[in-house]
Amino acid sequence: MKKILAIAALVFAGAAQAQELSNFAFGGAKQIVSPEIKGDSVTFRLNANYATVVDLYGNWLPGYGDKISLKKGTDGIWETTIALPQPAEIYTYNFIVDGVSVNDPQNYMVQRDGTRYLNMLLVPGTRTDVYKESSKRGTVSYKWYDSNILGINRRLTVYTPYGYEANPGKKYPVLYLLHGAGGDEEAWSSMGRAAQILDNLIEQGKAEPMIVVMPNGNPNQQAAPTFGLPTTQLNFRDPANANAYVRSLCEEIVPFIEKNFRVIAKPEKRAIAGLSMGGGHTIAASALYPKLFDYICPLSAAGNATVDQLKALKKEGVKLYWVGCGKTDFLWKGNEALIANLKEAGLEHTFYVSEGGHIWANWRLYLQTFAPLLFK
Amino acid sequence: MKKILAIAALVFAGAAQAQELSNFAFGGAKQIVSPEIKGDSVTFRLNANYATVVDLYGNWLPGYGDKISLKKGTDGIWETTIALPQPAEIYTYNFIVDGVSVNDPQNYMVQRDGTRYLNMLLVPGTRTDVYKESSKRGTVSYKWYDSNILGINRRLTVYTPYGYEANPGKKYPVLYLLHGAGGDEEAWSSMGRAAQILDNLIEQGKAEPMIVVMPNGNPNQQAAPTFGLPTTQLNFRDPANANAYVRSLCEEIVPFIEKNFRVIAKPEKRAIAGLSMGGGHTIAASALYPKLFDYICPLSAAGNATVDQLKALKKEGVKLYWVGCGKTDFLWKGNEALIANLKEAGLEHTFYVSEGGHIWANWRLYLQTFAPLLFK
Repeated sequence: MKKILAIAALVFAGAAQAQELSNFAFGGAKQIVSPEIKGDSVTFRLNANYATVVDLYGNWLPGYGDKISLKKGTDGIWETTIALPQPAEIYTYNFIVDGVSVNDPQNYMVQRDGTRYLNMLLVPGTRTDVYKESSKRGTVSYKWYDSNILGINRRLTVYTPYGYEANPGKKYPVLYLLHGAGGDEEAWSSMGRAAQILDNLIEQGKAEPMIVVMPNGNPNQQAAPTFGLPTTQLNFRDPANANAYVRSLCEEIVPFIEKNFRVIAKPEKRAIAGLSMGGGHTIAASALYPKLFDYICPLSAAGNATVDQLKALKKEGVKLYWVGCGKTDFLWKGNEALIANLKEAGLEHTFYVSEGGHIWANWRLYLQTFAPLLFK
Repeated sequence: MKKILAIAALVFAGAAQAQELSNFAFGGAKQIVSPEIKGDSVTFRLNANYATVVDLYGNWLPGYGDKISLKKGTDGIWETTIALPQPAEIYTYNFIVDGVSVNDPQNYMVQRDGTRYLNMLLVPGTRTDVYKESSKRGTVSYKWYDSNILGINRRLTVYTPYGYEANPGKKYPVLYLLHGAGGDEEAWSSMGRAAQILDNLIEQGKAEPMIVVMPNGNPNQQAAPTFGLPTTQLNFRDPANANAYVRSLCEEIVPFIEKNFRVIAKPEKRAIAGLSMGGGHTIAASALYPKLFDYICPLSAAGNATVDQLKALKKEGVKLYWVGCGKTDFLWKGNEALIANLKEAGLEHTFYVSEGGHIWANWRLYLQTFAPLLFK
């Protein structure tokens, strides 16, 4: 029984060819690299001998209509070299081939934004170090739970930190991390790099080991639209359904997590943060359930709390109220109004102001900035 | 504190617009449906007023070069209606717009095959009922473990059945489910619909509640290529590294699972199945570790076991040796050779022969066919 089976290289090669193939228009056998970062520049390449015009669109370009032209080489490879976008961040891009938007077939790194798949360009730098894979990684799980308030079975994402399984006697604090409109329960783990950011900060000793719960904040959805599941028919304009999602979060999701994971079920070990619509959910959940969360971080938030609500939070001894917003965010004025109410309520807070607007680059930056402040 | 916050519909709409947008060439505001199934036909639509030629490629077409032309309406919507492909299965397709391959922007249902994203068409029928979402769903987790044999930290997918969390005293049998060349640890959950198939079979009482472990079978990979992680430099032609992945599976992954999940750690509660290269791994793992698995299911397998190895399995009291293969599979002869050895060894077995070749439609069919036979 010691004889080793001969599963030859031949077999592997044969099987590789035989996998189901999509009918890719890009049939080039020539191996090219794209994007290729060298020093301060980056080269994009596309093998498309048949094409007449190839352009590059990137989310770092000044306007959405702007583009960069690629030039065709004698080998049919289109190419352009540009200065690396700054600051160091994750940028997204795609090619436009004869007017049709396509992904870079050489770049495996893809984010899903709603129903769109976008290629990523990670520009190295201090700020992006925590977006890379660390060596001690947590577990990402997709779980389903029943929401009686919303009347559907729903999916959520849970990150448990490295060491969760190896330390069965240990209990953890929990961060509830909420996405914006157009997002779903995969937004923070896909576009937000939440798992990588937490892995790195925890490994470096900068953040407490914590569980991160990323629910789906669209109250009519069972799960990400990629599941193709029907949406609910609940009428959210009916006053009886006011704040239905926030109620579901606080009265159903929090108990579900505290039942199924080893958590420290105390306000001082619960944090809530969210971007845009999820920032509104963060403000609302903390205002409507002032005893639940001691760490509250609305990011580029859509929404405000009343001075009375914020005074109530002060009375409850909230430990952190951390507001993040970009200078050019279209919700800037609303965030200023929130800060004004916080001041009037006398609730100690941080107003973290960044460059730029309503973009994931800011939300990744905010997460890596406030996560080290939690549960300390 | 009872005052409800006014996070108005206005805010939601604003936030939706403000999400990061990709620069989609398809800017049409007109709402269209694609694909639309009506009775025995299906209509595909694409809003592409600028395009000169729009074709549809589908994996049900006779040859990979074949295509179906769409016709442009006066509203700029391209359309074609065809008979639903048969048999009922999940098919994949894409559009070719002026020579460029693109996904159907109206179809949220997407599978990832290696580095390609393919739109899905689910044709309703008895065979595909188990591919749909059931109402009692298990959890899908992505975990990382250290492989000393392969010298890397690696990612694997684990399905735990509905009820796993609610029954903390219950232990479960485990199916190790292996992908083929070109695949990775997400192949069975994405293209194979493994979670949906198990959810449905378990909910219907047809299969035992079981844990399903889907590792990455490419020994040089840490994780799916979408992670962009470096591959190992291990020389797999070095005889010292022979069967390195199979050894890692049996000596590292099985113990990792049995330590971190509530499993019944006995041969009669362990099954192994795999397709193509993973079928080879299945044959090899069961032959090299004849005491480990009592249920062995090579699917369209690349590989064979010796008569002596199969006799040893018979001696160990293996309960199921289930071989699946399509009549037109390019590995058909190899599977016949495996069956011949099984006969010569006197090891009771099943040879499940399907139509078609080396395709996911068959592997989904095999999974729903053999899963009810496990652990009984």
